[in-house]
Amino acid sequence: MAVGQCDFPDMLNVAGITLGTTCAGIKQTVKDDILVIQMAEQSTCAAVFTQNAFCAAPVLVAKANLAYAPRWLLINSGNANAGTGKQGMQDALMACASLAELVSGEANQVLPFSTGVIGQPLLVAKITAVLPKAIKNLLLDNWDKAARAIMTTDTFPKGVSKIITIEGQPIAINGISKGAGMIQPNMATMLGFIATDAKINQPLLQHCLTVAVEQSFNRITVDGDTSTNDACVLMASGCSAAPEITADSEHYVIFADAIMTVCKQLAEAIVRDGEGATKLMRIVVKEALHDEEAVRVGKTIAHSPLVKTAFFASDPNWGRILAAVGRSGIENMVLENVQIFLDDVCIVRNGGRADDYTEEAGQQVMNRDEITVTVKLGRGEACQEVLTCDLSYDYVKINAEYRT
Amino acid sequence: MAVGQCDFPDMLNVAGITLGTTCAGIKQTVKDDILVIQMAEQSTCAAVFTQNAFCAAPVLVAKANLAYAPRWLLINSGNANAGTGKQGMQDALMACASLAELVSGEANQVLPFSTGVIGQPLLVAKITAVLPKAIKNLLLDNWDKAARAIMTTDTFPKGVSKIITIEGQPIAINGISKGAGMIQPNMATMLGFIATDAKINQPLLQHCLTVAVEQSFNRITVDGDTSTNDACVLMASGCSAAPEITADSEHYVIFADAIMTVCKQLAEAIVRDGEGATKLMRIVVKEALHDEEAVRVGKTIAHSPLVKTAFFASDPNWGRILAAVGRSGIENMVLENVQIFLDDVCIVRNGGRADDYTEEAGQQVMNRDEITVTVKLGRGEACQEVLTCDLSYDYVKINAEYRT
Repeated sequence: MAVGQCDFPDMLNVAGITLGTTCAGIKQTVKDDILVIQMAEQSTCAAVFTQNAFCAAPVLVAKANLAYAPRWLLINSGNANAGTGKQGMQDALMACASLAELVSGEANQVLPFSTGVIGQPLLVAKITAVLPKAIKNLLLDNWDKAARAIMTTDTFPKGVSKIITIEGQPIAINGISKGAGMIQPNMATMLGFIATDAKINQPLLQHCLTVAVEQSFNRITVDGDTSTNDACVLMASGCSAAPEITADSEHYVIFADAIMTVCKQLAEAIVRDGEGATKLMRIVVKEALHDEEAVRVGKTIAHSPLVKTAFFASDPNWGRILAAVGRSGIENMVLENVQIFLDDVCIVRNGGRADDYTEEAGQQVMNRDEITVTVKLGRGEACQEVLTCDLSYDYVKINAEYRT
Repeated sequence: MAVGQCDFPDMLNVAGITLGTTCAGIKQTVKDDILVIQMAEQSTCAAVFTQNAFCAAPVLVAKANLAYAPRWLLINSGNANAGTGKQGMQDALMACASLAELVSGEANQVLPFSTGVIGQPLLVAKITAVLPKAIKNLLLDNWDKAARAIMTTDTFPKGVSKIITIEGQPIAINGISKGAGMIQPNMATMLGFIATDAKINQPLLQHCLTVAVEQSFNRITVDGDTSTNDACVLMASGCSAAPEITADSEHYVIFADAIMTVCKQLAEAIVRDGEGATKLMRIVVKEALHDEEAVRVGKTIAHSPLVKTAFFASDPNWGRILAAVGRSGIENMVLENVQIFLDDVCIVRNGGRADDYTEEAGQQVMNRDEITVTVKLGRGEACQEVLTCDLSYDYVKINAEYRT
């Protein structure tokens, strides 16, 4: 079940970035579960990782290796290699070393990523056995296969492709992501891989990614759970003929804006594929004192099981939204100054139900698949948006029956 | 649906405390929905209230009136008088004034409480019309009726009765509570009323209640939502022949311990009646650096929809518990030092699945109705407990279909 249009787009080639997939049998199907991404020499690479204290082994290795000018990403789906102790760390290092040997690189130039079941030993020998095949498959136009190879319980592959022009020269930006919950059923979850042929130094690339992720992947929630394996990588091959993108330049603004757009679209695709989702909700919090406050209110609403079940039922139950705003921990909030809207219908004003609100108007909005909840706090100028989905029987079903 | 034995106990009489119920038709049934509690002169009264910024009107009035030596509580179920703006405040004040006139008291000696639907006008005339009847019904042995009159979607009335002895003289303690979710379906929720005939000054009584609530009602969660109307009141009539209970005395320790026990039992009853609950989970966090850290980890586990759905499915899906501990925001936590148990079965040790863990042993525990999850953080000496229930289809059903 997914909300809205979720077709995989035609993807550009990104010069200097090749992708190879294969099946190692980690997923216990015949579907591809291995993805190798190779970056041209001189590429720069930025990444952000989960803030879960119990990072999976591959996350720890990837974090450390980021300092060594990475050239390869090695991703497996079907097993998260999380909660696997010392053996898990050895397995992650072994996979990197094995790939490095095949491509005549250094093991610390490989960033490993795993997604899938937590707490099961990673059968690394299955991976190393098929790496030659994945390398042989490295191609510029393998983005569709790549997006499929990293899926776990996702119901559709997620991709975005975009082109920008700098001084008449095109720069391609491609991104793929996977995830259908902050943690999927026993899964360790969200991964995003974005590649461009822009030329840009690593610190600036990292800054660009960090800002974009904060406004995209960090603004979505399905169930409030943060996985042990979340990661997002931004690779820049430098193969475009466009001039190098430097800090404080107009070019950087164009580039950063495009990366932001790609991240937001990839993040939104994850919510559309949220476990059991039947509705997409944009929670827009305006007139907050500062961004942090706006995000806090937005996430409190987005995490509320009562709000989420009301949306599932298409019930304009505004008391639940009001109560969630009230318990979000914002000091000195004045109920009388708060306004709440469902799309363009005002439901709360002057401390209670808006005078002109009708149940019919609220119901009309709630019957839609995609709904914007706007909360005006009446305190300041800050505005932030959080994306989430509803809580349905299928969410319980998917998560209760996952292992049965 | 409720977990375990939930019979209403035989209740003692509490000298100096009388209770009267009646039906005002707020609930739109013939069931009692009004409760008046009268305290003897010279009684002391303590209370704690919701921390939701959007307190309901009666909460605001009760907070203010607490300073005026309250003699009466006026509680209605069926309507929360929350999100009702200025009219709601007028209605709450009107109800108090009406009761005060009938009993020849002052309006500010009445504490009003409302629980039920949010955002609907309180039909206060219905209440004032039946107050004479409620007052006429004031009796010492009306605790059972009182517990029923404050119910909304509760499936059973909740009461605890206890006697302690100080210098050979008995002191009675009775408590009733209501609630079946932190917020019930569109309901504004938890109420607790505890009465004793002990003699104790107000500041000490307030301290006693505040400490007890922190360890009981503030340690339970059904869905993580905090209502606009939560309140807990402790009344002491001073009618017992036992000597006055004073600070720093042995008597205070005995009394405070009894109040704590009553609060914990009333709180546990709310979780047992949690919406859709099929299992009661005690999350015990040990070896934390301090209490706050232990509570934070406990609540993160208790709020996780993934953990809750796994328990509903009786699935020993320990990866979800591990991931919840990891994302709880505790700095410098070392996975290798963390141990996790389901009842007495160790599932996580040394950074991964315990060597001696078997799926069969885990399954055996998960098949039980009441399960203790123990997390040892390996960081310090602090220990705290959080109570919660599972997340079932019926939770979604109850909350999605409430208004249909």
